[in-house]
Amino acid sequence: MKNLSVDADRLWSTLMEMGKIGRTPAGGSRRLALSREDGEARDLFVRWAEDAGCTITVDRVGNIFARRAGADDSQPPVCIGSHLDTVPTGGKFDGVFGVIAGLEVLRTLDDAEVRTRAPLEVIVWTNEEGARYSPVTLGSLAFIGAHSVDYALGRMDADDISVREALAKIGYDGSAEVGNRPIGAYFEAHNEQGPLLEESGEVIGVVTGSYASRYFVITVKGMAAHVGPTPMARRKDAMVGAAKAILEVNRVGNAYGPDGRSNAPHIEVYPNVRGVIPDEVRVSCDLRHREHTTIDEMEKDLRNALARLGEKLDMDFELEPYFAWGPMSFDPELAELLRNTADELGYGRQDLQIIAGHDAVPMTEVTQSGLILIPSRDGLSHNETEYSAPEHVTAGANVLLHAALAKAEVVADGDT
Amino acid sequence: MKNLSVDADRLWSTLMEMGKIGRTPAGGSRRLALSREDGEARDLFVRWAEDAGCTITVDRVGNIFARRAGADDSQPPVCIGSHLDTVPTGGKFDGVFGVIAGLEVLRTLDDAEVRTRAPLEVIVWTNEEGARYSPVTLGSLAFIGAHSVDYALGRMDADDISVREALAKIGYDGSAEVGNRPIGAYFEAHNEQGPLLEESGEVIGVVTGSYASRYFVITVKGMAAHVGPTPMARRKDAMVGAAKAILEVNRVGNAYGPDGRSNAPHIEVYPNVRGVIPDEVRVSCDLRHREHTTIDEMEKDLRNALARLGEKLDMDFELEPYFAWGPMSFDPELAELLRNTADELGYGRQDLQIIAGHDAVPMTEVTQSGLILIPSRDGLSHNETEYSAPEHVTAGANVLLHAALAKAEVVADGDT
Repeated sequence: MKNLSVDADRLWSTLMEMGKIGRTPAGGSRRLALSREDGEARDLFVRWAEDAGCTITVDRVGNIFARRAGADDSQPPVCIGSHLDTVPTGGKFDGVFGVIAGLEVLRTLDDAEVRTRAPLEVIVWTNEEGARYSPVTLGSLAFIGAHSVDYALGRMDADDISVREALAKIGYDGSAEVGNRPIGAYFEAHNEQGPLLEESGEVIGVVTGSYASRYFVITVKGMAAHVGPTPMARRKDAMVGAAKAILEVNRVGNAYGPDGRSNAPHIEVYPNVRGVIPDEVRVSCDLRHREHTTIDEMEKDLRNALARLGEKLDMDFELEPYFAWGPMSFDPELAELLRNTADELGYGRQDLQIIAGHDAVPMTEVTQSGLILIPSRDGLSHNETEYSAPEHVTAGANVLLHAALAKAEVVADGDT
Repeated sequence: MKNLSVDADRLWSTLMEMGKIGRTPAGGSRRLALSREDGEARDLFVRWAEDAGCTITVDRVGNIFARRAGADDSQPPVCIGSHLDTVPTGGKFDGVFGVIAGLEVLRTLDDAEVRTRAPLEVIVWTNEEGARYSPVTLGSLAFIGAHSVDYALGRMDADDISVREALAKIGYDGSAEVGNRPIGAYFEAHNEQGPLLEESGEVIGVVTGSYASRYFVITVKGMAAHVGPTPMARRKDAMVGAAKAILEVNRVGNAYGPDGRSNAPHIEVYPNVRGVIPDEVRVSCDLRHREHTTIDEMEKDLRNALARLGEKLDMDFELEPYFAWGPMSFDPELAELLRNTADELGYGRQDLQIIAGHDAVPMTEVTQSGLILIPSRDGLSHNETEYSAPEHVTAGANVLLHAALAKAEVVADGDT
């Protein structure tokens, strides 16, 4: 069993095939959560999983569970999951790699006629990216009960289309209860999205925990006025206020050492027309740091900076938190299993902390959860040119294969 | 004839009636160009003008001409014009005042049974604000041939609806040729949109010319990447670049004395989702100044500042001009007529330069054009609380009445 390996060519070509759905001119993928393209990708995954003998369950928030029966089907399944949705200009690896690697594990076991005592499941989570619907990891958060099904279904996109409506449109408004589904262990494989593995030259990152992330909306309230005749000194230009706020966010991320992160990638301007000094601007931002105590300082720093801006510019600056996660730790036993598995397979590995959200994070609340990363070229992700080398993709899938087998137990011939 | 005065109550109530179309909660109006509300406002104007005995002509870009016959109908008409479209959160005076004042002039002449030798026309121009369709004063620019009819009809709004489509939808895709329509003289009355008349206490501003205005789009090109794991030092965050660019625009407006103006009220961010460092941000901005030589310096200053930013941040900053007008001068003879008219009526007046675009500016290219302003409370416009006092509204209409009569000539009883 130790020599069992995934089919590297099949894995790669399956990954490339999935990447064609929503293909962008620059070679990436655009499959916003629950869009037509996400629906096509889900359909393709379901067809592949059914071809591999799986039974499919879709829950009310659209999470898909593809199950390969175990010798003892009463045992909780060992699961491998990730997501098929992308950011608007995403790559071919983020999320998809984890799902297709899970599928390849099942295919490999079928080819080798390996039976496991516990069933295996590959999970596709809904709206991991948080690009179309906020917050991130919406499907897995609903699964663990962090928010209600109604909350998840009621989330709205920028065009006022709800998750409920979007699910129905692509036929993934499943009937299965959300959560309350025993899980034996959960594994996830993902591209790193940062440069650390590339820098160290290791192949497998074993994730031991995460940075703290805090998400906010900054609302700047100015005063609408004509852009021309209004004297400069009389203006309360919310766009100028927002620009200063964005630079404060950026300053804070840089001010707390190499572990600090910050960004303000999303803006809404009212009325956002030429001719009118903006009345109100809303900027979404987040702060991240490895240390819990430091993220507290960063938030305080930003809050004080915005208060000073408000006083100086005589405008209202509000900082409203809307989501937070981490710091958290992954299950030490599974991390050790993943380390040992990488070692046995001869893959160089190192421990890592994640700075991006993944469905493996919520899953720690309901089961043992383990996450591995493989290198991203130039540390780049959420970019159409995102790339992980075939040998790294193969390595990640092989680690998943053997770690999952260790948890699900191989059943010997003649055994039942 | 010197004692003839508009009906102040009728003028005010007509203005307030028009302000109800697209009424906003804060007491302003939302009638984006060629929207359903703009269509309703046009219908109401046409009904009022027809009730006053006018004949209506609509040209291919939707400009409306309401004509009151003259004793010698072969003479070119003396016109009074402005617009009924508003910015998204506009007031009840900007544009509308000029149109309704023109209508009141006709009603007053009807009541007093005054005939003029030249015909009179009230003109409603299409898309003056430039809020839904860029650029500003689209209808009058098409009228004078500054751009082609096809160009005007092909302008697209943010939802990719063309002017052509929007005109057809509200039934104002007229058949009259655009331009090539002789005009004897053009008058326009507008609220000031700045604080100068309020500060001086005068009632009538006689506009002698305009500031120079230059409009640009700044394009900042960064690199899409994940907002979390990407180290701060590796980022090319186009939102940070755009924030710095916005502050440079603001700095330039402040750096050239009290006559300098600048703003950056409109932004487009790609992809504008939480989770992705923006790849590209486009900021629309403009610079204004009284002096032609100074506006040159301001543009150069901004251009240099953006080049320095580009070098420092290793991102691409592009400054692309898309529209410009002024400095320009209004017809001195009409300005003198407007001064004398104000004096004869006993209204305090002062000369002013405009810093906002008006349809009277393009009209200088094809006829004698004159523009007067009345005070705006707190100098505020493009704001739902915009307000001009009834006595100032009346004063503006009376100046229009007598200036138009002077140009169109009153026909004595029995004369033909």
